[in-house]
Order: sequence, then C-alpha cells, then structure tokens
Amino acid sequence: MVAGVLFDVDGTLVDTTYLHAVCWWRAFRQHDHDVPMARIHRAIGMGSDKILDELLSADRDRDKDDELRTGHSALYSQYWTSLRPQPGAVELIRACARKGLTVGLASSAAPPEFAVLRRVLDVDDVVAGATNSGDAAESKPDPDIVQAALDRTGLSADSVVFVGDAVWDVYAAGKLSIPCVGLTCGGISAAELRDAGAVAVYADPAELHGSIERLSRG
Amino acid sequence: MVAGVLFDVDGTLVDTTYLHAVCWWRAFRQHDHDVPMARIHRAIGMGSDKILDELLSADRDRDKDDELRTGHSALYSQYWTSLRPQPGAVELIRACARKGLTVGLASSAAPPEFAVLRRVLDVDDVVAGATNSGDAAESKPDPDIVQAALDRTGLSADSVVFVGDAVWDVYAAGKLSIPCVGLTCGGISAAELRDAGAVAVYADPAELHGSIERLSRG
Repeated sequence: MVAGVLFDVDGTLVDTTYLHAVCWWRAFRQHDHDVPMARIHRAIGMGSDKILDELLSADRDRDKDDELRTGHSALYSQYWTSLRPQPGAVELIRACARKGLTVGLASSAAPPEFAVLRRVLDVDDVVAGATNSGDAAESKPDPDIVQAALDRTGLSADSVVFVGDAVWDVYAAGKLSIPCVGLTCGGISAAELRDAGAVAVYADPAELHGSIERLSRG
Repeated sequence: MVAGVLFDVDGTLVDTTYLHAVCWWRAFRQHDHDVPMARIHRAIGMGSDKILDELLSADRDRDKDDELRTGHSALYSQYWTSLRPQPGAVELIRACARKGLTVGLASSAAPPEFAVLRRVLDVDDVVAGATNSGDAAESKPDPDIVQAALDRTGLSADSVVFVGDAVWDVYAAGKLSIPCVGLTCGGISAAELRDAGAVAVYADPAELHGSIERLSRG
C-alpha cells in the first residue's frame, strides 16, 4: 500500500532541464571547456557538485570549479521569471493530496533556486515536506536527498513511490529500494529510464495523473 | 558499394540542437505559447515551416507565424560566434574524403545560418555539394533536401548513406530508400533513432569515424 509520493522537481515538475543544459554549456565555454550539450543533458539531475566530475577531466584546474558553478547559476537565474510547470504538474500534486497520499518534494536545487521552483508550482499548501541541496550531504545519485525527504514527510521507504525524469532519480530511489516512476518530459527517453530501472514511464505529470489509480495501488 | 555520404548538419556535425530548442521555447513564450522543451527538442530537425504546425495548435493566429520564426532566428543568432563542431565531426568529414567517398551536406538551415555552420566546420574544400532550406520546396521529413543533395553531388540513392541525429533525418532518407546512420549527439536516444529505422546508431561523429570501414562497405 502506497502512503505517499516523493517528486523530483527540476525537469519533473518544472520545465528546467534544457535551460540547465544550455547554461552549463555557456558556463563551461566561458572557461574554454567544450562539452557537447547532449552529454550535459544526460548529467543533469546529479547535484552540481557531481556534474563537474562527470563532465570535465580529472586534471582540470579545480580552483575554477566554484566560478563554473557560479557562472551556471547566474546564467540560469535569467530564466527565473520565465519558468513554467510541466504539463499537469500542479494538477497531479493536488490530486495526490486529495487522494490522501502524502506528497514530498525531493529536489537537489540550491535554496534560492528551490524557492523559485516552489513559487512556480504554488502547491506548498498540500506538500508535507520538501528538501533542497542544503538538506543532504551528497546529491543524487546518492540517496541522501531521498532519505531526507522521507524523514521530513514521515514516510517510510517501503510505502512510497518516487517520480523523476533523470536516470539519477531512478538510481537514488533504487538505493533505498523505492520504486521510481520515470517521466520523459525532461527529455530523457523511455528506454533510458527503463534501462536505469524505472518501474513505469509516462510522458509527463498529466499522463501520470491519468494513471493515478495505478500509482496509488503501488 | 557506397560511393558517398550525405550529412545532416545541425545537431549531427555542429552542436546546435539544444540551442534551437531553447530559442524556440523563448520565441513561443514571447507570444504566450507554452510548449514543453522536450517536445520542442523532438521536433527539431523538421524545417521551421513544419515545426509550428507540429508544436502549436491549428487554431492559432497564423499571422504571427513569421514573427515566431523571426524571433527564434534572432535569439539563435546570439549563439553564432559560440557554436562548436560535434566531437570528431571535422575529422570524420576529412576521413570520408580521403577514402574517396563523395561528401554532401544536406541541411535545412536557412542560408545565413548555413553559412555560419560551414564556417564552424571549415571543410568546404572536401565537400562536393551542399544544400540549405533555399534548395528544397519541402523541408524534412519530406525528402526534397536529401534529393537536392543527391543532385548536387552527383550521387545516386542506391549508393549513398545518410548520417543524421533526428528521426526526421531517418524518415527523409527512408523515403528515398537511403539507409540512415543515427548519431545520439543531438540528444535523441538510440532507441528512438532505431525505432524510426536507423540502420546503425553511434554516439557522435568521433565514434562513427572509428567504424568508418563499416560505413564505406555500406
């Protein structure tokens, strides 16, 4: 019996993945790192601490890592006022709450960015608990953020479903034996999400909403 | 026996797909159209004439279509000086020419954008023929641009391979019974390219270069 649902936020509930990809690419280019955008896209969803190790060579000048992260954040902040929920995201969250499911947000966004994402969604009145990068020692694919969201919502791993758009969400949930439903609205294909271990894949929150009975049966 | 190779350019040889996706999204937002970026990404590679019909409702104000296209082009032009070849693109083109394969570029970019892409690649000395949107009545997935590239290079459909990164490339080549090799460097997954009919899938031009013997045997 499923008692609650934990949601990744970036790419899953708010349409940010492509903006993050292009902003990382621009930040890398400012420091003469050429990283193909499709590679960056596949790394989005890891924490910004891990993205640099995933995408840049180990012998880079690590003194510049903070500048790269700051560059990405500054470029991305230009989009804050333009961000939009994914199709059906708000309706899905509210429908889960109406069905008596506890809703948690398990985001690896930094606190100021996370505040923007919450404003875009405007569902705080039905969210039982939310985490951001400040609540976990290690970002996804480590499970710390998912564990923090469990702690904050009072849910236990054996009665919860995770919903995410990145393979890193699937891996993080898997480390706690939590089934993960994948959404392709972050641009990662159904095949990639299934290969990572997603138990089901939907196009976006709107399509998952249409199958919510299946979700609540677990 | 393969006599030549035709290449899509945007996303296949130059890393532009994500920039196009974000610029279309921004152009749509300027006119209050909300289109999720993953949906836009999957439409990239169609001509700009077809993208609007693919992504916007049929009952939109079509008098604004030209403004939308101009908006996208203006936003995208800000990236012209930052564009980079995909990994191994230049080396692959030159290797094909050294092996005696005729090389053609079959792009649906508009002429000014196409001039920028050719400058980024800097391989005109070994390209036998190139087309842009001005050379075809209908853009991909219609085969007009591929046929124009055949005409311009003197190649025939039964002795050529097409290389592209979008399902629209696979469909366009397929209408002329030309086998299409898919590259995932535009962010479309191997599964999606294979489902569309790609005969083989590689990560990027660099990986295809490593299998060039297989390509030249056809």
